[in-house]
Amino acid sequence: MDKGRLEAFSDGVFAVAITILALNLSVAGPGHGPLLHQLAHHWPQFAAYVVSFFTIGIIWVNHHALFMRIALVDRRLLFLNLFLLMVVVLLPFATSTLATYLTTGGRDSHVAAAFYSLVDLAMALAFSAIFRWTLGEGRLVRAVPPELTTRATIRFTIGTLAYVVAFGVSFVSAPAALAITGVVAVYYMFEQAPPLPAAFEDGGALAAGSEATGPE
Amino acid sequence: MDKGRLEAFSDGVFAVAITILALNLSVAGPGHGPLLHQLAHHWPQFAAYVVSFFTIGIIWVNHHALFMRIALVDRRLLFLNLFLLMVVVLLPFATSTLATYLTTGGRDSHVAAAFYSLVDLAMALAFSAIFRWTLGEGRLVRAVPPELTTRATIRFTIGTLAYVVAFGVSFVSAPAALAITGVVAVYYMFEQAPPLPAAFEDGGALAAGSEATGPE
Amino acid sequence: MDKGRLEAFSDGVFAVAITILALNLSVAGPGHGPLLHQLAHHWPQFAAYVVSFFTIGIIWVNHHALFMRIALVDRRLLFLNLFLLMVVVLLPFATSTLATYLTTGGRDSHVAAAFYSLVDLAMALAFSAIFRWTLGEGRLVRAVPPELTTRATIRFTIGTLAYVVAFGVSFVSAPAALAITGVVAVYYMFEQAPPLPAAFEDGGALAAGSEATGPE
Amino acid sequence: MDKGRLEAFSDGVFAVAITILALNLSVAGPGHGPLLHQLAHHWPQFAAYVVSFFTIGIIWVNHHALFMRIALVDRRLLFLNLFLLMVVVLLPFATSTLATYLTTGGRDSHVAAAFYSLVDLAMALAFSAIFRWTLGEGRLVRAVPPELTTRATIRFTIGTLAYVVAFGVSFVSAPAALAITGVVAVYYMFEQAPPLPAAFEDGGALAAGSEATGPE
Repeated sequence: MDKGRLEAFSDGVFAVAITILALNLSVAGPGHGPLLHQLAHHWPQFAAYVVSFFTIGIIWVNHHALFMRIALVDRRLLFLNLFLLMVVVLLPFATSTLATYLTTGGRDSHVAAAFYSLVDLAMALAFSAIFRWTLGEGRLVRAVPPELTTRATIRFTIGTLAYVVAFGVSFVSAPAALAITGVVAVYYMFEQAPPLPAAFEDGGALAAGSEATGPE
Repeated sequence: MDKGRLEAFSDGVFAVAITILALNLSVAGPGHGPLLHQLAHHWPQFAAYVVSFFTIGIIWVNHHALFMRIALVDRRLLFLNLFLLMVVVLLPFATSTLATYLTTGGRDSHVAAAFYSLVDLAMALAFSAIFRWTLGEGRLVRAVPPELTTRATIRFTIGTLAYVVAFGVSFVSAPAALAITGVVAVYYMFEQAPPLPAAFEDGGALAAGSEATGPE
Repeated sequence: MDKGRLEAFSDGVFAVAITILALNLSVAGPGHGPLLHQLAHHWPQFAAYVVSFFTIGIIWVNHHALFMRIALVDRRLLFLNLFLLMVVVLLPFATSTLATYLTTGGRDSHVAAAFYSLVDLAMALAFSAIFRWTLGEGRLVRAVPPELTTRATIRFTIGTLAYVVAFGVSFVSAPAALAITGVVAVYYMFEQAPPLPAAFEDGGALAAGSEATGPE
Repeated sequence: MDKGRLEAFSDGVFAVAITILALNLSVAGPGHGPLLHQLAHHWPQFAAYVVSFFTIGIIWVNHHALFMRIALVDRRLLFLNLFLLMVVVLLPFATSTLATYLTTGGRDSHVAAAFYSLVDLAMALAFSAIFRWTLGEGRLVRAVPPELTTRATIRFTIGTLAYVVAFGVSFVSAPAALAITGVVAVYYMFEQAPPLPAAFEDGGALAAGSEATGPE
């Protein structure tokens, strides 16, 4: 129940943050050229919207899979979770900034992409911190075999490294940095941990080991 | 519980998206003519608000009826659901754009209505994809008789076709396209599957078959 | 569970609508006079915020008390509830409009107050429609004694009539109409149905009879 | 269940309010100088965002810990909670105002910081009122030993006094007042009531006594 309310609050924040992404979408209205051109001209807004929507969505999916296995909630977990949420709530602003500068080129577009990548990276690190917290004695409903923990850690690292690469690429090309973030989202969406789907269907505790490997 | 959190997150997104629709309502304030004229002049905003509110509302009702019957949640369902939510969150923007251009006439009003209809259509298709997912072996709490599945599929198709018609009509008249969307909402609101209400009251599993026939 | 999700969705909409009220609060920023004057000049925004916050808050309290007693959810209840939510979501816009015109005087302030009162009235009528739905055979967890139903109906009527009065007063004085709405909120906040508090504490089914008498 | 819905609604309001904080973050866009300078120039927005995010977050953590122990919900608690939420929802506006004036110096910055501190103080007092309500006979699941009540009261008072100090300091330096609010958040984040963590882990009823000592 304790945990239930933590999840409910987190779900609320994820839900509002993911919906607020769409507030960045706008057209200037009559007198600013044909609507079709306005919509076409705003493709960076739409591209950034889709990438960020799935980035937050996947973090939510992984949050869900990880918390499903957590047995107790302590004050440290509450604040690690709060830190994760603080970063998630920054993402709509980072998305809006990136969309605005995506096609301006030059140094500003690099700064916008670097800022966006840093927020993604902070989100991945915050999620990793929660994952590491779960490795403590007695914090999970059921112990996770060491090899699953290792695999989950490897996947975390892949996601985190991809965001580091996106950060570096930002200084070359903002659209390329956004594309890398999109690839990370697609990777985690299609990534299926082979041996575990059955276990997931019968309760989820084991399969969650493969789930907890998100965009971070 | 698993499913519970998926529903809670979805409910959150539906609730925020449906409420954000009202952010499109505004008056320019003192110095822009009599308030009564401003309000009257904004009738497209109000009309679009009402139609979109019930369109999202009905999708929520059907989402609720469909998920009530789902027995297991797998990764594919999570992402089909995420895709549905991504489209739902686009609707306030599409609504705002349509309201802005509804009475300007000409090509821009057609583009705005076509864009709005496409978002509705994408929502219907995303919901249909979730419905088709439920037809897989062992995914529902209780098997649904084939004739109910057929009827639900027919109703889905009616809704989806109506949005296709609205898309076509967009290029003739934007208000007519909005009106068709409104008719779809009214149709699903009053549509009562005759033999099932009793079953719905005693638990809902069967009646849900007739419920899962929404605006899609 | 069925009912649980209806309540969760409704709670989400109430929560977003009540929070969005605060988006109407703003100051123009540096260069627009001393901040203290700006804040003081915006007293209509704050007054309208407080009144609308408690108006939505009390509707939520009564919604909660009424749904606690509901045994079954049918399609009609779903749509009556959707209609109530559609009106609730209009309230932030009506509040913002009233706050903007509250002190301009003249016909515009009367129109703004009349519009605000009409939204309150529509909310009361939508809530009454849900209450009347609960009077149907077998819709409540436990039958309510006729005298309680009569008392609840009387209280509904008082609230509804007060909003009708506020509507009429709008054409004389906008601040007076807002004040009446505030008095309705205070009345329902302090109104204590004498014989029932104990029952409320032991489960709520009976006391809810006296609870379901809100701002409507 | 009663209590569950009160918590769900409160969680919704907390979640929306905490997310809306990020709507204050913005950059003016191309043509307003280098993006890096714009971001750097907006440090007051980021600083105020972080402080307010954790201030709301901690109030939520404490709300959660306090309500976990509450056995019954009466009308008075509903309205005390509504009053707390009304203040919480004001915080994004107070934060935005403070961020706007933080570095302008002079009287306006003092007024903005004083307003912000007053909202924090009102939040602390509203939370204290709920805490005092819990001290009434039979309102908690399990009685709390008097010494724990005393300690919780002392901690409440420390937080409340800190906000009073922040209010006073506002008239000297706005950034200093914001810093004090930040220190209060950090204090409650790291503050660990020594003898109780274990009890918290085994169910929370006792430990909650030490939890309910938040930023108020």
